Amino acid sequence: MVRENEIRAGELAVDAPAPTDAGLIFIGRICTPWTSRLGAPRQGRLDGPVCRIEVFAPWEPALRGLEAYARVEVLYWLHLSRRDLVLQSPADNGLARGTFSLRSPARPNPIGTSIAALVGVEGRTVLVRGLDCLDGTPLLDLKPDRALFTPIAPPQEGDFHVGS
Amino acid sequence: MVRENEIRAGELAVDAPAPTDAGLIFIGRICTPWTSRLGAPRQGRLDGPVCRIEVFAPWEPALRGLEAYARVEVLYWLHLSRRDLVLQSPADNGLARGTFSLRSPARPNPIGTSIAALVGVEGRTVLVRGLDCLDGTPLLDLKPDRALFTPIAPPQEGDFHVGS
Repeated sequence: MVRENEIRAGELAVDAPAPTDAGLIFIGRICTPWTSRLGAPRQGRLDGPVCRIEVFAPWEPALRGLEAYARVEVLYWLHLSRRDLVLQSPADNGLARGTFSLRSPARPNPIGTSIAALVGVEGRTVLVRGLDCLDGTPLLDLKPDRALFTPIAPPQEGDFHVGS
Repeated sequence: MVRENEIRAGELAVDAPAPTDAGLIFIGRICTPWTSRLGAPRQGRLDGPVCRIEVFAPWEPALRGLEAYARVEVLYWLHLSRRDLVLQSPADNGLARGTFSLRSPARPNPIGTSIAALVGVEGRTVLVRGLDCLDGTPLLDLKPDRALFTPIAPPQEGDFHVGS
């Protein structure tokens, strides 16, 4: 069961440092059909409903060329999540696992990442399928799916670096 | 050619808002063979060199269970990057594309994401192949590769939500 903000049997919270190592800019807002964590998908599906990503000024020019990619990586800020849990019990059954072995939204830096199917770009609105976040989630970034992207810059020495 | 911090012909920088919408915690440090952006890989490769991810206290317990996954998603902070470019010319040839159509490190929120092959977990050190970031890059998060992860929480209404 997806949590609101309670701590469950077997879970461990720690004193997290103040989140002051770097700062984020919300570059847009994501509109989805889900208004409660208790009814949202646990994971998005590429045949799910179309969701709207509204990109704020001054970032609109940064969308140029995105329409060439069938899938985009979406990064967003899970703004309602606890950040202090190191052990979590997703099934609320007393069995706990480490936060980094889960894709739970509760994590020290609650950044969600999804690969979404691109439906279209209209002005500064990006339409996609495959998200699972709540309506109103702040947008952090958009990039082409790594599997579809070929670097445009010429190769560098590190590109040929294999080995032990 | 990978940039240091210059602005090139055809590129566009904007007045970015102050990065104060949310704050990040650096949860570890990534050790790689690359000390200059001019020699680092443009994209990591799964047969690349083993890199060490050192997770800071108090997050060590959060690693429990990660070793079960063959691939992990690594999020890190591209601490040397410009954040104000909306159009970029990766080949420095006068042709510019939108930042969100590129996987360049220069972006409003310079968060790198990689899928890395997990080599092992030793205490609070995670060994992986497939990174392309510089030595000393701050770590933001680790999660199982989405393609390998099955949610542990029971299904919710949104999981069955398909459609237009």
